[in-house]
Amino acid sequence: MRDQEHGSPFRAAGAAVATADAAGTPNPASDACRDLTRRLARFILASGFDDLPQSVRHEGARTLLNWVGCAIGGSRHQTMTNAMAALSPFFGPPHATLFGRPERTDILHAALLNGIGSHVLDFDDTHIETAIHPAAPVAPAILALAEHRNVSGRDLMAALIIGIETELRIGVAVTPAHYKTGWHITGTAGVFGSAAAAGRLLGLNEQQMCWALGLAAAQPVGLQAMFGSMTKSFHPGRAAQNGLTAALMAQAGYTASEQALEAERGWLHVLSTTYDTAAITAPGWEILNNSYKPFACGLVVHPVIDGCIQLRNKHGLTPDMIERIEVAVHPRVMDVTSIRDPGTGLEGKFSIYHAAAVALAAGAAGEREFSDEVVRAGPIAALRRRVFATIDPSLGKTQARVAILRRDGDRHAVFVEHAIGSVQNPMSDRMLEDKFRGLSAGIVSAGQTDRLIDLCWNADKGADAGEIARHAASA
Amino acid sequence: MRDQEHGSPFRAAGAAVATADAAGTPNPASDACRDLTRRLARFILASGFDDLPQSVRHEGARTLLNWVGCAIGGSRHQTMTNAMAALSPFFGPPHATLFGRPERTDILHAALLNGIGSHVLDFDDTHIETAIHPAAPVAPAILALAEHRNVSGRDLMAALIIGIETELRIGVAVTPAHYKTGWHITGTAGVFGSAAAAGRLLGLNEQQMCWALGLAAAQPVGLQAMFGSMTKSFHPGRAAQNGLTAALMAQAGYTASEQALEAERGWLHVLSTTYDTAAITAPGWEILNNSYKPFACGLVVHPVIDGCIQLRNKHGLTPDMIERIEVAVHPRVMDVTSIRDPGTGLEGKFSIYHAAAVALAAGAAGEREFSDEVVRAGPIAALRRRVFATIDPSLGKTQARVAILRRDGDRHAVFVEHAIGSVQNPMSDRMLEDKFRGLSAGIVSAGQTDRLIDLCWNADKGADAGEIARHAASA
Repeated sequence: MRDQEHGSPFRAAGAAVATADAAGTPNPASDACRDLTRRLARFILASGFDDLPQSVRHEGARTLLNWVGCAIGGSRHQTMTNAMAALSPFFGPPHATLFGRPERTDILHAALLNGIGSHVLDFDDTHIETAIHPAAPVAPAILALAEHRNVSGRDLMAALIIGIETELRIGVAVTPAHYKTGWHITGTAGVFGSAAAAGRLLGLNEQQMCWALGLAAAQPVGLQAMFGSMTKSFHPGRAAQNGLTAALMAQAGYTASEQALEAERGWLHVLSTTYDTAAITAPGWEILNNSYKPFACGLVVHPVIDGCIQLRNKHGLTPDMIERIEVAVHPRVMDVTSIRDPGTGLEGKFSIYHAAAVALAAGAAGEREFSDEVVRAGPIAALRRRVFATIDPSLGKTQARVAILRRDGDRHAVFVEHAIGSVQNPMSDRMLEDKFRGLSAGIVSAGQTDRLIDLCWNADKGADAGEIARHAASA
Repeated sequence: MRDQEHGSPFRAAGAAVATADAAGTPNPASDACRDLTRRLARFILASGFDDLPQSVRHEGARTLLNWVGCAIGGSRHQTMTNAMAALSPFFGPPHATLFGRPERTDILHAALLNGIGSHVLDFDDTHIETAIHPAAPVAPAILALAEHRNVSGRDLMAALIIGIETELRIGVAVTPAHYKTGWHITGTAGVFGSAAAAGRLLGLNEQQMCWALGLAAAQPVGLQAMFGSMTKSFHPGRAAQNGLTAALMAQAGYTASEQALEAERGWLHVLSTTYDTAAITAPGWEILNNSYKPFACGLVVHPVIDGCIQLRNKHGLTPDMIERIEVAVHPRVMDVTSIRDPGTGLEGKFSIYHAAAVALAAGAAGEREFSDEVVRAGPIAALRRRVFATIDPSLGKTQARVAILRRDGDRHAVFVEHAIGSVQNPMSDRMLEDKFRGLSAGIVSAGQTDRLIDLCWNADKGADAGEIARHAASA
């Protein structure tokens, strides 16, 4: 998956590309391992915004826009309410905004809480190969820092991109063993992204950046046992907070191992049964493999939703025109989305019947289309009963066939090869804006939304990156 | 090592003692694993102070006294100075004392910083079987909480003891595999102790205690790669802070897995290649195996120091009377303490020659005896040159022989079977008081020291446990 056409950040950093360890035979004494943490620190500090390819810069802006929308959209969730109730008595100086909320807090709590809010809807960005959600551990740390120190838009965007690159490369190095063990990799690798990005903005030198990576390595957050509970979204939030803390402490001379990754009892060896350190120093930019969810539910049902929306828009379909909806999917899809008659919004996310019906009726599948209200609406329930799903083992997991039988006898069909939102078929910039508007509606004003979208697209042009967060507060 | 004579907290909690898994064959579906987290939560909440055996209560008071002394003694270390510089701009309301310092901070930062300060000298308590330092992750969390909420001395002591019991039992369950992997177990298991103890004081119910254990499980801190850097003492401090955070969030309804320990992708399975869940529900009290260091250096050289002090005191020896000091030790001891002519206090801690000389000259081996000043003093250096060390493979690692050849021709010898400070030969209460005075001298007043020693011994009698921390502030 790694893009080979966009130059090598490691060559740009002046470091030789290391010979790969054979994956599965970790050897801390090998050339590929030697000074790995220090070489990573050098990479983190080497490139300025001007050194980044245009495609990488643009993906950074897309990632930022998508993240800000998710942070606002999740800001009123019960998970946030409970976290706020627990921690607000201990808040420090109100240097930082809580996205989509009126309260302010210290930058460490802001990193935690905005990280929680941005992941709680499971609607944030995804790096498919590693299963890392790249922005949630990184963006809240540096956006908070940008409200406390003077940070230019260019520096913010370079930090975001390099931070994401750092966590993804470490994630690739331990994929698939680390995830299979049961770690929630968004937290465990994400903390390195936060430390790297915050460390850049704090002006750490190479030595201090090694310590920041060490302090980050010592505090991995995230067990998959927590999936299905509020603690899942705590993971990226805490990773953001831990990485920011690591960078601040390193700046003050708080020392850590300078071989945090490669040491015999360091992060790679302790947290993964196998790893390939060559991934950490490989050429290319992992951020170009980032993807954004157009629909507020699990990726498995996205191809069906995509097909339904395509047919609706192409043929001007309305529910009353539809006799029958036939969908065919990979067998695995029905394992997790077979709820026939969902009663809640959450159940709707696990119902291929609801997903197809609401996509045809609304032409969308955002948070609103998976609300209790919409799931329980009579016309949607009636359309749901006209959805028929079959499994077809010849289809890939990312594919689907959708056919509509009209009451007037006409029939329309579509085959979805790669659902919209995949790396192969990415959401357009305009679609990302629409998603943002759906998430921010009712939380911040339409005027604020317009301004925020503009601030994100032009983040690299601002003199004060703190503006972004300040515009994301709700009244 | 487990004491079998002091009743079973699990029987007291009304839970059946589980059949042991065969160690090495973890099976989350087995009876011993089923509901393990819930049964542990029940145990944590079941016993009040009155249910604890007298021996356990007294060990709790000894642990508290030793910890408070270490926290004051470490409070001026550069490690603390750097951590304070990094984090003080983000402090919340000054509800809590920083031991041995004039500043106050919010309870979350107090848990972190007092945890760091209490471990930085490596002079705190040790549970030998697991290598856990039991108090450092637990005591700072609940002592801070006791300044914020109304906590009685009885409740504080019960929380301290049950918290320590919780972390030690989990630690025993994963010993030795977890430590061998490279985890610093004081942080990784310690967070459960902090969550349990803080959760008791917050009045969590069984459900909330399960969540607190889940939030604790999701954020293990500590890699052995950090040994030798400031991050080593960060581990118990962060564990204290994380456990306290976990308990506060659980109280506010922040949910987590209720099978955090035993789930297929839960803490036991993810963080240890083998484990024995029976240890978590075994009868007896692990806190009775806690031990306290009389000397401010690695345990390996304690038998030699003990022997030197014994001979000095028995025979009224002074340096000018001594021709030659002969010590014989297990071969491993010389691997780590063979520095012939140390130039700094830290090097002195790794010199059997300095340890023997200073013990004979001063009759003590506290922080002062390992200061740069004392290590560099002429008379000590002269005596050091008269120390001769030999290895004897027939000796155990905890044994030593010491012989003194006097200038008047007399010869004295002693064999140390178990050094003072070991579980088999514990420090007396009076010795713990002397250690406390050595640590607090020059940081808090003599009057405060007397009052603190009294407050610790009688902690269970106070109506307001916040008094302990408040008396530990420096002017």
